[in-house]
Formats: sequence, structure tokens, C-alpha cells
Amino acid sequence: MGRNGEHFFSRTSRKEEGRLLLLPEAESCRRLDRVRSAMLSAGIRAGLVSGNASKFYLTGRIFVGWILVTQDSVTYYVRRPVELEGDNVVYVRKPEEIDFGCLADGELGLELDCATYSSIERLSAAAGIKVPGDLSKVLRKARSVKTDMEIEMIERSGKMQEGVYRRIPGLYAAGMSDIEFQIEIERLSRLSGCLGQFRIAGDSMELFMGNVLAGDNADSPTPYDFAMGGAGVDPSLPVGADGTVIAGGMTVMVDVNGNYTGYMTDMTRVYRVGSIDSLAEKAHRCSMDILRALEKSGVPGAKASEMYEEAESIVKERGLHAYFMGHRQHAGFIGHGVGIEINEAPVIAPRSRDVLEVGNVIAIEPKFVIPGTGAVGVENTYVVTCDGLRCLTNLPEEITELL
Amino acid sequence: MGRNGEHFFSRTSRKEEGRLLLLPEAESCRRLDRVRSAMLSAGIRAGLVSGNASKFYLTGRIFVGWILVTQDSVTYYVRRPVELEGDNVVYVRKPEEIDFGCLADGELGLELDCATYSSIERLSAAAGIKVPGDLSKVLRKARSVKTDMEIEMIERSGKMQEGVYRRIPGLYAAGMSDIEFQIEIERLSRLSGCLGQFRIAGDSMELFMGNVLAGDNADSPTPYDFAMGGAGVDPSLPVGADGTVIAGGMTVMVDVNGNYTGYMTDMTRVYRVGSIDSLAEKAHRCSMDILRALEKSGVPGAKASEMYEEAESIVKERGLHAYFMGHRQHAGFIGHGVGIEINEAPVIAPRSRDVLEVGNVIAIEPKFVIPGTGAVGVENTYVVTCDGLRCLTNLPEEITELL
Repeated sequence: MGRNGEHFFSRTSRKEEGRLLLLPEAESCRRLDRVRSAMLSAGIRAGLVSGNASKFYLTGRIFVGWILVTQDSVTYYVRRPVELEGDNVVYVRKPEEIDFGCLADGELGLELDCATYSSIERLSAAAGIKVPGDLSKVLRKARSVKTDMEIEMIERSGKMQEGVYRRIPGLYAAGMSDIEFQIEIERLSRLSGCLGQFRIAGDSMELFMGNVLAGDNADSPTPYDFAMGGAGVDPSLPVGADGTVIAGGMTVMVDVNGNYTGYMTDMTRVYRVGSIDSLAEKAHRCSMDILRALEKSGVPGAKASEMYEEAESIVKERGLHAYFMGHRQHAGFIGHGVGIEINEAPVIAPRSRDVLEVGNVIAIEPKFVIPGTGAVGVENTYVVTCDGLRCLTNLPEEITELL
Repeated sequence: MGRNGEHFFSRTSRKEEGRLLLLPEAESCRRLDRVRSAMLSAGIRAGLVSGNASKFYLTGRIFVGWILVTQDSVTYYVRRPVELEGDNVVYVRKPEEIDFGCLADGELGLELDCATYSSIERLSAAAGIKVPGDLSKVLRKARSVKTDMEIEMIERSGKMQEGVYRRIPGLYAAGMSDIEFQIEIERLSRLSGCLGQFRIAGDSMELFMGNVLAGDNADSPTPYDFAMGGAGVDPSLPVGADGTVIAGGMTVMVDVNGNYTGYMTDMTRVYRVGSIDSLAEKAHRCSMDILRALEKSGVPGAKASEMYEEAESIVKERGLHAYFMGHRQHAGFIGHGVGIEINEAPVIAPRSRDVLEVGNVIAIEPKFVIPGTGAVGVENTYVVTCDGLRCLTNLPEEITELL
């Protein structure tokens, strides 16, 4: 079994290991300020962060415990691991040991969209309140505008992911099934530094490492709220590759995990074997044209719903509506915020009320399913700048032939 | 890049795809009966199943939606995918369309340990109740005793996992880091049919594909509630391999994903390079002896807490207590139920009130961390029978040398 020397892993510095806060002081303050400002608007006096994604946001690491944020304090309550050090680090065994202070109903924000009902009930009781405030919306808002350091980390993931995608055609061998192809992409991704973990907000979506769709499997409806489907290889995980042998006339859409830094990029490219239906070529060009249009219109202040409409109108103009975002089953969005989780704000969808801000990072994925051929379309991750969208996943977008 | 022909994937039959219920009728009834009986004991008149794991339990597939179970009815409310068919299948767009009937506080069981606070609040409002009953405990109880079909599926996962573990020594090459070794194990697992998805109940534990621990990295505390730790390669996922180069005198503990059928086995074996400290050899033998003892005492009616005590007393007798279940940080259990999720009931821990029943499936993992050497110990998955524990992960348990 061959080894691949080009990996990016290095051991965590033992010196660093003991500090709870792995972010530079100024960066930590910047993120706390974003959360505090959103708390103020929401009338939340104290916010208790419990979810892994937001703990990582505020500290640069995952630990088991809670972070209590008020306008003038922050306390890190840690259950595990042992031996973490730093200002305002307090070890506790259970949430009843947290010092909430004196709070009225609605004043304590908890992660209502993230934590289980049982855990919220327990935290509320520990704080002596009956009605928790909604910290999920606050954190979603705060995290939707990335700091420069976050953008740098996402950009780094993008570069790693580009490197993997560049080598994808070399992984193909004639006669491979979609899942065999995917497994080689998984391995190359992992050897290139991909962390594997694919963080999804909410409690119902599941995906392992990504989605490789060959031919008509792209038209199999999935239960999950992803842009594309696929039957999967087992009914316990009904999404993605299903064992289809890749053959002439098919497209193969590759949309795999871009988590290389704790922050991810989301990127899709399409491959083909032999020549494919001209309708698929046309739809793929349409996807590229939509991206070019949205790259310009995606300026601060742009309404997410209008960006969706702009994309849809291009699709309708070209008579491709029946294939847009699926064929047997259609997805209801073309873009989504990306960062620590794959489904952050803003959402580019018909009824979205989101408005673009400088520092949003969004993946845009106008895709099509062409019966008899497969999925086509491009997905890039962008950061919103004053001049429009800046691409963080730079690689040729044309359909690449697998030889 | 070489291909491996020995994969087990086949396309879902298109005929089957359309039926919601993928379980045989009798099997579906058997599982519903288990849930209904636990509902009766808990005073729950109607149970609304919302989590993926329990939906898979009751139907053999994952879908987005809910299952409403009463003593004399079952209704499958489906949001996605489109086109599912069968008795009592009702398509809905939102939970407000569910026909809950007339229920008082406490009579509607919801998955309080699994679903988010927001979703439980919304479901409660839709049902016109203020206080939901706890369906999580009911489902945990029902699912803790496996049916023959479930045991057969777990057994099948065990056989696939055995096949992978048998080939693990062949994946090693001198100079490899732990993460490189792990990536080759991941690839072999996936090519052998491993589904990748690693289902964990609760909202805070994360793991990608498994844990490969070399040398002193085994002593790095992790925040997560796993038996063993490891620093991981990034603070966003602080568990497992950390880039340690595998070298002479080290042990390498392999504990990777056994989900091949939607049901998983959990299995750990240890490898070494060259000769290792005799203390590590001694601790490994102790682990094997504990398993032999518990295989006998693990009969129906056995108290989980007493099984833990039995293990602990063997450890203390041999003076190995400082290394048991970790060294810098100790895990508080030695075994756990396994099935659709990795952390089911019963739990083998000091304060567990669980009592073994015929049909429980449990992983037992008495492990040790020896400073300067690494982790040792064996983990097997067992089914509880009248005669004690029957092993579902049969492979030699001795430490295997990597050459």
C-alpha cells in the first residue's frame, strides 16, 4: 500500500496545549464583541454558549463545558479535558455549578436551535429561569460575518481543497464505481490535511466526507436538505454514491469535504467520461454564467432573495427550469453561508430575508440534474467584499474529462 | 492509484426504493411492540419519533419527517424524500400538519434528549401541549434489547470489521505517522463496505471514522466522553491521532468505525513496533482476563455496576489502577451499548443502574494507558445470552507486531 508524503499534519505544540484560549487576545475580543453586540440587539443580558461550533468560534478549540458571556465578562466553565489554563477558566462537574448571577426570564440566552430540549431545561433550572432567550439567532448572526482571521483560515482550506481537486482526474481508473472513486478522493483529501469532520447545524442532516454523484444516481431523491441527492449505498445513509459504475456519457459531480482548518470551503466540480449530452453542456455553462452574474451583484446590501431570483431568471430564459437544483426532487436554495458549519447564514433562497454584508462567506451552487447524463454545475465559496464576491475556490470550472 | 475489487456495495434495488417500510412486516411489528410496551410503562399515550436513529430503527430507512406511534396506530409523516409509498404514509410540509389527536400534558412523548429545544417547542405547540413526555428514555429502553434481525445485522458488521482488522498489519510501513496509518485503515474499511457515518447520541461528541493512538499521544486528554483520548491534529477536533511518527517501543491502538449495515460493532486491537515495556504487556493481559471474567458474569440479571466493580477489582489486584481507562485523565466507564448509535444502553459504569437483559449488545473495553509506551487493551462487542456474553468481534486479541 503506497504512502503519500505530502501531508500537512504536525503535532500540536505541547506548550500551547495547556492554554484554553488558542486565539490571539485581540481576535478573541473581536469575536466576543460581535456576540455582545448581537446580544444587545436581542435583549439578552447573559449568553451561555454550549455548542461545539460556537465554543470553537470563541476560543479556537473544542472543550466540554460552557462559555458565559455578558457585556462586561466572559467565563469559561470547563468539564473536560483536564489541565486547561487561562484567565476566567473555572472547572465544574455540572451546569449547576455555573454562576449565572440574577437573571429574569428571557435574559439568559441559550442555544435553542443547537442544544437538546433536556439540556436546555437543565440549564434553565440551574439558572433559576423558566423562559430562555434565543442565543442561537445571536450566534448565527455574529458568526455570519467573518473576521479577517476567519477569512484567512477559510482561504487556507480553499487552497488545500483546490490542491486535492486538481489531482482528482489522476485518481480515476476505467471501470471504477462512484464509491470507489469517492474513496480515493477521501484518502487524498485526508492525506492532504482534511480533518474529515463535516459540521452541520441542526439535528437531522448527515453526510460522510461528501458527495460523488455519477449518472442517473444524481436524480435519486435524498431526504436530507442538500442541494443534490443520490441514493447512497445503504438506506441508513441515503445520500450520495450508490455503487454506479462510471461509464461513457455520464457526468460525475464531486462535492467533497473542505474542512482543513476547522473552517471549511465548499466546492463542486464536474467530470465526464467521453462525450455527454449537449443539454448537460448547456446547463453547465448556465451554472457558470449564473456565478459570473452573482459575483457582480453579490455586493453588501444585496438581498439574498433577489440573488436567487436573478439566478432563476437566467435559468428560465434558457429553458432549463425543469432540471434546476434537481429533477425528480428540487432543492429550495442555491447558496448558503459557510464557516465552521456547512449551513451558516446567509441563505440564498426565494424567501430568505438575509441581506449580504462585507465578510459574509457563502457557497453558491447553481446545479442541474440532466436525466440520462447526471449532475452538472459549479460550486464556489466566496467572501463578500465591497466590489462583490471574491472567490476562495479557484480552479477551472469547465467539465473535465476523465481518461 | 490502485483499485481494490473487494468491495461490498451494490445499488439499492429501484423496486425497493419506493417503499417507505424497508423492514419485513413482522419485524416492524416487533419493534413497534417494544416501543409501545415502554410507552405504556412511562404513561405516554402517543410518541412522536423525530431522530434519525429511531426512525431507522422503526422503518429500516432514514427520512425527514416524524413517526407517530400510539398503542393501536402508527403514521409515517414524511417531508422528504419525495415518492415514498406504503400504508399510513402521509406527506406533510410542516409539523403543524400532524394529526396528534387530543392529548394532555405529559401524554405526548417527544425525543427530549435528541431533538433541539426549538424543535420540541414547535412540536409541543403543534400538538397543543405545554409539557412533553420523555420519549428518549422510552426509545433508549426499547432499542437496548435487540431483535434477532438486529443482532444478525450487528454480527454482519462484526464480520466485515474482522476482515478489515485482519489486514491492518499489512497496511503498515516503517516511518508512517499515526494519521497516515489511520488513513490507510479508513480506506480499507471504506472499500470493505464501511459506511463511514459514526452515529453518536447527544449533541457534543464528535469523531471521524475512529481513533488510532500511537505512543504517548494516548495520554493526551480529550474533551469528548470516549474511553481513550489523543490530541488530534487540530484543536477543532481534539481526539485521536496527532501526527506521531510510529516508532520502536510504542503501541498503536486501533479503534475504528464498525458501521457496515447501519448497525455497528465496536472493536479495538493493539499493535506494537519492536518490543514494548513489560508493564504494557501485563496491562494488556489484564484487559484480556477482564474480558474472560465478564464474558461469564455478563448474564441476564447482572448489574452493570457490579460488572464494572469486578473489572476494577481485577485491575486493583494487579496494581494497574493508575493506568486504567487513562492516565492523565480517566474515563468513567468500561462498556456501553452498541447498535445504531455508539453510545446506547446499557452502560457499564460505577453508578449505572442498568441490568443486563438477553439481547443487549454491549462493547466492553477495559483499556490502559502506559506512559512512554501507549495504550493497550482489547475491545469486543458482545450480545447478552442466557449463558453470558457471546462475542461478535472474533479475532486474536494478543498485541500484534507491525513489521
